[in-house]
Order: sequence, then structure tokens, then C-alpha cells
Amino acid sequence: MDTALIILAAGKGTRMNSDLPKVLHRVASAPLLEHAMAAGAMLAPRHTVVVAGHGADQVRAAATLFDEDAQVVEQTEQLGTAHAVAQARPALDGFDGMALVLYGDTPFVQPETLEKMQEALANHDVVVLGFEAADPARYGRLVMQGDALQRIVEFKDASPEERAITLCNSGVVACKSELLFDLIDKVGNDNASEEYYLTDIIGLARAEGRSATVVTCAEAETMGVNSRADLARAEAAFQSRARALLMEDGVTLIAPETVFLARDTYIGRDTVVEPNVVFGPNVTVESGTTIRAFSHLEGCHVSRGGVVGPYARLRPGAELAEDVRIGNFVEIKNAQIAEGAKVNHLSYIGDATVGARSNIGAGTITCNYDGVMKHHTTIGAGAFIGSNTMLVAPVTIGDGAMTGSGSVITSDVEPEALALSRAPQVEKPGMARKMFEILKAKKAKMQRGS
Amino acid sequence: MDTALIILAAGKGTRMNSDLPKVLHRVASAPLLEHAMAAGAMLAPRHTVVVAGHGADQVRAAATLFDEDAQVVEQTEQLGTAHAVAQARPALDGFDGMALVLYGDTPFVQPETLEKMQEALANHDVVVLGFEAADPARYGRLVMQGDALQRIVEFKDASPEERAITLCNSGVVACKSELLFDLIDKVGNDNASEEYYLTDIIGLARAEGRSATVVTCAEAETMGVNSRADLARAEAAFQSRARALLMEDGVTLIAPETVFLARDTYIGRDTVVEPNVVFGPNVTVESGTTIRAFSHLEGCHVSRGGVVGPYARLRPGAELAEDVRIGNFVEIKNAQIAEGAKVNHLSYIGDATVGARSNIGAGTITCNYDGVMKHHTTIGAGAFIGSNTMLVAPVTIGDGAMTGSGSVITSDVEPEALALSRAPQVEKPGMARKMFEILKAKKAKMQRGS
Amino acid sequence: MDTALIILAAGKGTRMNSDLPKVLHRVASAPLLEHAMAAGAMLAPRHTVVVAGHGADQVRAAATLFDEDAQVVEQTEQLGTAHAVAQARPALDGFDGMALVLYGDTPFVQPETLEKMQEALANHDVVVLGFEAADPARYGRLVMQGDALQRIVEFKDASPEERAITLCNSGVVACKSELLFDLIDKVGNDNASEEYYLTDIIGLARAEGRSATVVTCAEAETMGVNSRADLARAEAAFQSRARALLMEDGVTLIAPETVFLARDTYIGRDTVVEPNVVFGPNVTVESGTTIRAFSHLEGCHVSRGGVVGPYARLRPGAELAEDVRIGNFVEIKNAQIAEGAKVNHLSYIGDATVGARSNIGAGTITCNYDGVMKHHTTIGAGAFIGSNTMLVAPVTIGDGAMTGSGSVITSDVEPEALALSRAPQVEKPGMARKMFEILKAKKAKMQRGS
Repeated sequence: MDTALIILAAGKGTRMNSDLPKVLHRVASAPLLEHAMAAGAMLAPRHTVVVAGHGADQVRAAATLFDEDAQVVEQTEQLGTAHAVAQARPALDGFDGMALVLYGDTPFVQPETLEKMQEALANHDVVVLGFEAADPARYGRLVMQGDALQRIVEFKDASPEERAITLCNSGVVACKSELLFDLIDKVGNDNASEEYYLTDIIGLARAEGRSATVVTCAEAETMGVNSRADLARAEAAFQSRARALLMEDGVTLIAPETVFLARDTYIGRDTVVEPNVVFGPNVTVESGTTIRAFSHLEGCHVSRGGVVGPYARLRPGAELAEDVRIGNFVEIKNAQIAEGAKVNHLSYIGDATVGARSNIGAGTITCNYDGVMKHHTTIGAGAFIGSNTMLVAPVTIGDGAMTGSGSVITSDVEPEALALSRAPQVEKPGMARKMFEILKAKKAKMQRGS
Repeated sequence: MDTALIILAAGKGTRMNSDLPKVLHRVASAPLLEHAMAAGAMLAPRHTVVVAGHGADQVRAAATLFDEDAQVVEQTEQLGTAHAVAQARPALDGFDGMALVLYGDTPFVQPETLEKMQEALANHDVVVLGFEAADPARYGRLVMQGDALQRIVEFKDASPEERAITLCNSGVVACKSELLFDLIDKVGNDNASEEYYLTDIIGLARAEGRSATVVTCAEAETMGVNSRADLARAEAAFQSRARALLMEDGVTLIAPETVFLARDTYIGRDTVVEPNVVFGPNVTVESGTTIRAFSHLEGCHVSRGGVVGPYARLRPGAELAEDVRIGNFVEIKNAQIAEGAKVNHLSYIGDATVGARSNIGAGTITCNYDGVMKHHTTIGAGAFIGSNTMLVAPVTIGDGAMTGSGSVITSDVEPEALALSRAPQVEKPGMARKMFEILKAKKAKMQRGS
Repeated sequence: MDTALIILAAGKGTRMNSDLPKVLHRVASAPLLEHAMAAGAMLAPRHTVVVAGHGADQVRAAATLFDEDAQVVEQTEQLGTAHAVAQARPALDGFDGMALVLYGDTPFVQPETLEKMQEALANHDVVVLGFEAADPARYGRLVMQGDALQRIVEFKDASPEERAITLCNSGVVACKSELLFDLIDKVGNDNASEEYYLTDIIGLARAEGRSATVVTCAEAETMGVNSRADLARAEAAFQSRARALLMEDGVTLIAPETVFLARDTYIGRDTVVEPNVVFGPNVTVESGTTIRAFSHLEGCHVSRGGVVGPYARLRPGAELAEDVRIGNFVEIKNAQIAEGAKVNHLSYIGDATVGARSNIGAGTITCNYDGVMKHHTTIGAGAFIGSNTMLVAPVTIGDGAMTGSGSVITSDVEPEALALSRAPQVEKPGMARKMFEILKAKKAKMQRGS
């Protein structure tokens, strides 16, 4: 059956105490909304409809950044979940597959769980995602008769027997699209909050003699985010799971609790990650590399045999070939570093190409910005860039060339040539002593004067 | 009622295994003593008397650094808590308000708790601070009759019935000053330790027909520090509470357990703090900023829209205006950075003023120290400092001026001028190849020789 | 009694999902094998025999790196623990002392525990190391009669009564060497796995009327490593214990859970270690120093009064005398820094000697590598190295000498002399403005063109 996702993302999230719409707060470097969209995307949906409200423009931008085909509809008033789903109707006009209602603030529902809901819908009219709650607290309870869901009862309306039920409602619902909207038309707002609740569709469906059932998932999948503390807990839950998976895949995390991963971090087998490493989005690390302590990687690729850090920062576009070595206090941005090259100390290599086996001396800087535009630096293979060389881009250093330490290189250097710009060393005997004497006398005078 | 604080801070803290007096060990970047003094200071006391003993000079210095009006009296022999309090008598001669006895190694008693004690003293002669202990262990027990405190019984002297009491003694006591010292005069040392115990005043007061009562607080407030492990636990307790408060206030801490705060850290709403950030004393961060991973801030101010780090170090006197960007491996000290200015890579800016929208190139250093004195660097608005510029202070760069990369600037630069100091680039064809050949031959010869 | 260690280190560790032999994975910066060897080494054994199998060459290298006298024998087929021990027979030919069987993947058995086994062997023929398991799960059970070990029963073969036993088998065994090999000769492989089990020797010994007993240790000592998750747990266990010991010894760890120690880290009393510090192998830190946040130390020595970091990297061979100050973004490698010297910012000092009280300016680099060989830099006492000085080694700066900021120093500098290499500052009025105009026009043209 074809699928349409309806992702509710209109809430303000008052308890977040934020100007940013709740669903745009991030876990594992990605907006909460993206996690929900990504899980749904595994069903290869025909339609993805995001219902935005607070901060709709920002939500639209984030949704379409992740999936350019996503449709974003606006719920201008927040009148309840059924009302939110109703906003998706025009976007799904004529669609008769499964509509799956997800929540932009509930990032961890697994694709496998959604597939089970899809399968269950073959035999039922409505499928609700439930979970066995360790502490059911004030969740809505799922009242079952065999495998038939009779109704969803809110905690405050529940009898003592119903409150003893531990099977709880996640809010995630699957239903044939046309039926969903028919049922929603019948939902009323005759309740204390005067809101239209999506959960009411179960009672309405059952009253029409339709069948409803429940698919269950781990409670952890249903974790929602309503406060910054929840956000931190969701981040911790993500990280904990992601670290465990990496270790199963043969990655050593010396101190797993100090390594932070993004939603899409890939690290190959027999890589060692030392304590205190942060991976931002879009990082791939091949097998057999070492990521040393205090490194920070975003949007980059590290090939087999690479050694990165400690204190290395790889920024977007850093592409390290095999056996590259990036050392301490080094920043690499938008640069291809070829096999076996080394940038070991205190350097900034941005907008550059570095040839194989080149050695980039300490303190080297690619001067890539002239105040208006960025320019490219090309360094050949087997080059030796002396310490503290300024490479004023655009500039090319030939294969096997060398620059003298402390040089400012503004013109291209031929292969195998030595280039330097250096004033001769001058020595003034005794002058250091004299200068110290003068400076100390001056200081003493100032102190007397004050 | 006027208040006088008597803060006991004479103990050696043998289990700390330290040359530093116990109360000067730090939690949240502040000495334990300062936490106790700061809580008491919320009552706006007329007198603050610190009773020092071990390391009295160091304790005096710390006490008067926090509160220049604090009086520090010395307890030359450690003969018990009553004896310690007695040392404060001369300092409080003629004072007839509330005397409140606090402990320099008990940092977390809350001001609200002390206010409750102050209120309770309106109706009672002595007020003791108690707490319901989860595990009463060997604490002294508070024996109550209704809301009257009958006596304090030490664990070792307690009957089985008394040991079943879970209301325990924190040691914090409030009493009219004159009465306190009268009672203390009567305290004896006829016990195993031959010490004068402050707790004995309750029995003495009751025997005189005076009333005593108990105010209770959370057990966490009474946490004392006796070892380095306790110190680490106190730090963890402080951090945990401070992080939770920040999150409630609308600050995102991606990994709260990796962010370390000082006693006085202020961070505005909708700021995002990435993993592994350390805040030292006296930091204020406005709303809507981003503090990236591995940053270290002390004594600085970050204005709205600022982005700091990763790997940025802001030292005391760093004042960042709105939308300033401080990047990786950059140190800022005693410098005002105006709106929209950028210092993105590998720089040291100290004792400086940087104008709005200026761009400070990678590797820039303000050479602020001549070996004897520190000097100031002034950079105008809209300036462009080329990479690896040395600014030899005192020096001024005019508005809209530019320096060539690799320059050493020793004289002032006019607005809109370009300044540079650069030897011309020279190229020696084939020389790199020849030098490598020579060096390799030399190495081979050395290896044969060895 | 003389001792011979037989350390079983042949396993592949399939669940490690690694090309590296299991016993070479590291905890506290040392291979698991080294932990086991080091514990055994406290008995001053006459022989140390390591039984290698998977990755035998790598295991041999690691074993002999730690103990050059260790004998490494190879088990070409993995036919069980008794078969593994049998491989040690030729190496122990004629030896008649105690043979002690340890495991290369069980790093935490304490020397004191092994001494107890040694003592117990005076009165028994075989001694097995057991532990009281909090959750015995599927461990082998030790069936005792008084203090006599009757037999070891595997969980799957155990009766319900036997399964109720909580005293479990660690696998560590001590036995007179000749007896051990005699018993092993009689071990069969008539079991489901067709393996020769070392545990069978207990039953064989008892059947011969020999005595066996059990020495017990804490369960934590018997922790084995079979997966990367186990490895992380072992690391955490090590760190937790090592941090607690340091705190008992009078070291302040502000946030102990963020400080990572090596097997041999030594830190003196009244040193303060700030959050996020990593100690690699072979570090000694004297009393009364401060190791600031985000520092990384390996193979180095910090003397009393030193202040290191934040963001300092001390690499092997860094030797800091008293009161040395190493600041942020500074790397020190193979360098002796004399008393009171300062390297405060953004520097690389490698293969160097720095004299007492010298001040090394920000951005200083010792250019120690010419592309082929490393060379030494010598800086005298009381020298002042200006910011961004390149010291092209081999080079010597005399006592009390000074270098101008931005200089490239290629020749030796006399004591008290000032050396510099600097092109004069040139100023081009209005040129910055013109250049910005030209660049902006160029950019606009490019944008129109695109």
C-alpha cells in the first residue's frame, strides 16, 4: 500500500522557553523533525506532509532542506491534533493509501516499527502504536479486547481498572487516508480544552463497526521532547544507542560517554576513537584510523590509516586520503589532502589541494580570503612547506618544491624549486641587555610617577 | 532582626590530605568558604565573622577578597565548635541581633533556608537547622516534642528509639547573639574528645526553660566536604543543579554532563552550549549565542548573536559585542571586540581594542609584552588584518586599513592605508631537489658512521 | 617457591570484531596483555611464558616490549585451555616451582591476590582463584567441602543445588609445574566442543587423592574482555579505581569522570586537575601543580609549581622544571624547559632546550625538521623570544638574548644580543580602500557573469 506521512510539527513547545519552534531543536546535530521525517522516509512514502504552525517558515525551510518534495501545510490556529491532521487533507486529495501520523517532537520511532504498522493495516481499519510503560503515569491507556483496540481512555477519565492498564498510547496512528479524514470530520471539541483530539477517531471508528488494533514498540521509541531537559535526555538516549552500535561494529570507543555522534556518522571497523571527540553532521571515517582526543569533525572524510588529532578540527569539505596525518591545533576546511601528507601543527589549510606525501610545516596558513573573495591554494606532491609559510591564494606550489620558513608566497613556485621571502638576519650585540635596562628604567619611572 | 554571621573555618581537614586549608578548596571555581559566605550574605548581615585556624592567613585573604568588611578572628587551638564560636565574641561585642553559625565546609545551605531560620527565631530562643536523612547513619539526632526541640543526641549516646529518628542535625544554629555567648560560657568539655560542642547549648537552653525549635531543609543543602572525593561529589551536585536551572531558563546544553559552570555563570535564553565547555568565574553570555565545543571562558562577556569556538579561549577582560565570531585556537584576553568583528583562526588578541566588522586573519598576534611591560593595540573599524600579522604594541591600525599577510607592524597605520613589511619572494630553480639530495646523503653518511 | 607465569593469549576474540588480537586491545593506554603480565611480574617470576595464537607475531612483539625476557610460545590450533597450557611445557622443562596460569584478556587480577594463591599452594596441590558472583549466571561453580575444592562444575552440567552456589571459577590456577603438566596429559576432549579444558585438572587431581583449594578475590578483579563494550567497561572500571586512588592521595580532580589516566600515571599531592584532561603513558606530575582543562600529556614530566594548559599538549620527552608555565595551543615535544620559563601561546617547541626564566613569545616555532632530519634548538637563560620567531634548527640563542617578533633565526645569536630579520614597514596611503573597491568590483563582475 502506498504511504503518506503526516507529520505534526505545529506546536510552540512553551516549556522549551525558546523562540525556536520546538521541532527545530536538535538531537545528534539534526532537528527533531528530521529524525521523524527520516524514520518515515524508510517507507518510501508517496507524500510527506508536514503540518507547521509556530515558526512555520523556519519549519518549512528545515523540512524541505531534508526532503525537497515534502509539502508543508500551515495550521494557523492550534485547535488539537485532529485539527492539525485535517490541514493535510488538501495535500492528500485523491490519495487512497495509508496515512501515517507522526510527530515532529518524537524522534526515535524506528522504521521497523512503522513497517509493522503498515502490515497490520492490511487487516484492520486503524492501527495505533502503543507501548508497555514502565511507569504509565498520566499517559492515555489502550483498552484492548483480544487484539482489538476498543478505545483510548485518557488518564483523567480512566476508571481504577483502566488505570491499571500499562499499555499506553504513543499517539502515532495509521489509517486508510480517506477513512482518516472521514473520521476526523466527526471529531468534536466538547471537552475541557475545547480541542479536537485525534485519539477520538478510535471510538468513532469502533462505533461504525470498524476494526482497530495496536502495534507495540519499545517505550524508548516514543520518547517525546517538551523541555530542554527532555532534549538533553533524548540526546543522551540517541548517543547511548549510537555508541553501542559502533562498538558492536568493531569500533573502539575508549570512553564512549565522551564521544558525540551525529545522526549520520559512519565509522569503520578497527578505528580507535579516543576520549572527547565530537562528530558533527556528515562525517565518514574509514576502517583502521585513529581519531585522537579533543578532535572535532564535521562534513569530512577520513580514509584508512589516517591519524587525526589530538585537537584537530576537520571542517566541511575536508577530504583526507589514506595515511594522512592531521595534528594538533590544525584546522582543515574544504581541502583535499592526498595520500600520506602531513599537517602536524598549528596550521590552517582552507580551500586547498595538498599533494601526496607533502609535509606542511608548523604554522602554515593558506591565506584564502582577501576580504571579499575566497581563493584556492594548490600544493603539489612531495612538497615541503617550511614552518610559518603564508600561502597567499590563488597560488600553486609545484611538485617537490620547498618554501623557506617564514616566507610569504604570493607567486607560483615551480616544481623542485626553493622559494623564500626573507629579510637577512641582523644581530645587534648587547642590544637586548640595553633594551631590558631601558624598559626597566621606564617602568620604574612610571611606577614612581603613579 | 539584625544578623551576624559566624562562619567556622578553622579546621585542617586532615582527610583532604592537603597543605591548603579545607575551606579554601574550590567548588564551581569558588572556595567552599565563599559559598557559605555568599549564602549568608543574602541576609544582608551587619557583621560577618569568619573563625580561622589552620592556614588563617590564607583564609583571611579569601574571606576579605569576597567581602572586604568580613572580620576574621583566629582560633589558635581547635577545642571544639563551641570554642570556635566563642572566638567571635569580641567581634560581636554589643551586638544584640541574631547570630547565625554557618560552616565554611558546608557550601550548599540555601539563603531561603536561612531566612526561615531567621523567621523562626522570632518565636524561639534557639533554632537548629535539621534535615530528614535518607540514611541517618552516625548523624546526631534531633529529639522533638511537637515542634519543640528537646535535645540533640549524638549517635553513639542514642538509645535504640532515638536511633530510629531520621531528623538529623546539620550543625547550623541561630540564636540571639548575647544568649548564644551566655550559653557557650556554660558548655563543658567533659567528654571523650575533651572538646566543647556547640550542640550542648540546646540542652543548656532547655534546662533554663528556653525554647528551641528546628527548621528543616533538603539533605543536599547540608552536604559537607571532608575529602577530595567529597569535594568531587559536591562539585557534581553543584553542577547538576546549575545545569538543570539553565535548561529551565531556556538554554540548550547538548550534553549537560560535559558543561562546567562557575558559581556566578550567567547564560541567556536560546543560547546553545555544545559538549565540553568550561566556564570559569565571572562569565556572562547573552541570549541567542552559540558556545561551541571545547571552549573555555573566564571573566568575559559574550553579546547576543556571538559564536564562540570550537576551541576558543576567552580570558578575563574579553568583551565581545554583538555578532562577534571567535574561532578555533584563538585566545582573547583583556580586549574589546566590537560588533560583527571576526577572529577566526589561531590568533592571540590581548590588551587590544578591535573595531566593528574588522577581520583578523589567521595567525595574528598582538605582541603586547616587551619583556617588561604590557602595551595596547588598537584596531579600527572595518580593518583587514592579513594572516600572520604581528602587531607590535603600542600600535594603532586605522579604520578600513589593511595589513599584508606576514607583516610585522611596529608603527601606526593610517585609516584606509595598506601597510606591509615583506621581503620580496625569491625563487631558486631546482634548489629544493638539490637540498633534499644533500640532506639525504648527509643522513646516509651519519647512519653509516654510527 | 619460584614462580612461572603461563599467560594464555591465543584467542581471536571473535566478538571484538577486529583484526587486532584481543589481548592487544588497550585499557588505560596499555594492552590487556600488559596488565596481566604486570600483575604477574610482581611475583618476580623466574619464567614468563605467553601462549600466543591469533596474531602471534604482534602478541610476541607486545609481550617482549613489556618484558624482554618473556618467552612466547605458539598455539597453532585453538583446542582448549588445557591444550594452550600444554604449549608452555617445553619452555618450563625442568622447572619445578609454581606454575600460575593467567589470562591475557583478564587485566585486573591484583598482585596481592596472586600472592595469596602462592601462599595457599604451600598446603595444597592445586589452587583455583574464585569469586563470589553477584549474578553467577553461566559461570562455572566451585563445589567446596570445607576449604577443599571438590570439583568445578560447568553451569550447563550443574544440578539445581549446584546452580545455587555463588562461588564461581575465574579460570586462574596455580599448581606445581610438573604436576600441572602431568594432569594436563590426562585431560581429554570428550565433550560437546571437543576441547581440552584446564578446569578438568581439578577432578583429575582429586581422583588421585590430591588436595585442591580456592583463594577468593573481588569479582571486579576477574572482569574479562570479549567485546568492545566489555573493553569500554574495563576502561571505565580502571579509570574509576585510579581516580579514587589519586583523590585519596591528595590530588584534586574537579570532575573525576572527565580525567583519563594511564596504567602508570603518577600525580603528586595538592595538584589540581581541571575537567577534561587526558594522560597517556609515562607521565609524572609533581606536587603542587595545576593541570588545566583540555590538556593532553604523554611521556612527560611536570615539576612542582608548574601550570599546564588549558589546551596544552605535552608529548614524549617534554621535561618541565619547577614553576614552568605552558599555555594554550602549545605543543612541547622532546624538550627540556628550565625553571620558571614560559611558553604561553600558540607555539611548537620540539627537540629543544629552553633556559631558566626565558619567555617564549606567542607563535614561536622551532623548525626542527628539514625534510630529512631533526635538529636541536638551544635557548639560553633569561632569553626573550619575540612573537612568531622561527628558530631554524640547529641554532643556539644565547643567555639574555632577544629576537625581534616575526624573525627567522637561522644563525646563532650571541648572549645579550638582539637578533632580527625584518623587512621595513611600508605604508601605501589609501591603498586598502582602493583594493577593496577593486575586489568588490571583480566579485560583482563574476557574479554577473555566472
